[in-house]
Amino acid sequence: MTTMSPPAPELQPRLRFPDQGSKAFGPGKAELLRRIADTGSIRTAARELGMSYNRAWLLVRDMNGLFREPLVVATRGGDRRGGAALSPLGAEVLARYTRMEASCLRATRADWQALRRLLRPSD
Amino acid sequence: MTTMSPPAPELQPRLRFPDQGSKAFGPGKAELLRRIADTGSIRTAARELGMSYNRAWLLVRDMNGLFREPLVVATRGGDRRGGAALSPLGAEVLARYTRMEASCLRATRADWQALRRLLRPSD
Repeated sequence: MTTMSPPAPELQPRLRFPDQGSKAFGPGKAELLRRIADTGSIRTAARELGMSYNRAWLLVRDMNGLFREPLVVATRGGDRRGGAALSPLGAEVLARYTRMEASCLRATRADWQALRRLLRPSD
Repeated sequence: MTTMSPPAPELQPRLRFPDQGSKAFGPGKAELLRRIADTGSIRTAARELGMSYNRAWLLVRDMNGLFREPLVVATRGGDRRGGAALSPLGAEVLARYTRMEASCLRATRADWQALRRLLRPSD
């Protein structure tokens, strides 16, 4: 009989690798990659995420160093300050990571639905 | 031809819920539950995890409040300071969470194996 239900609690799978070290790849870096792919600009991606350009640039540098080749590369083109794009490797990493998140959610759905019913309802 | 390889990087699935709020249930609380189940004592579990008793107690309080019934209950018995055990609900939550971690790892294995080969080898 409630007319306004709070949003149902969701499961967050935060997949991180490698397991050692502070520069791991995880959901934050994946989202930054996604925004760079969408906007063609580290600066715009950073702004969309409420992050300083400097912070985004450092995250990109860390990501690029984590893999055999850079994930994000500079582009030249219309934007007079230059732009950024995902390398083929960057696109592959983002696609695989995105699929892993979806696979994890699907594989855990039955247990999560059961657990969710055991949570105390929030007001 | 290497004689000493560094350990292979591993994927960490950090499953957290609910998605809002700072008192979410995740891998840290699950591990605390596991140790309490094993040792029958919040104090011993805390010591094994390198955590203060006070910190462990607060985490238990938060967990107990997150669900419809407490996950950890006090026991009386041999230990003169009393002990702790998982309630049936606590055992169910821990079992489901543990299975979710395993399911997530299994479901993401193929992509993770491919991603792992794209990582720069660590020295």
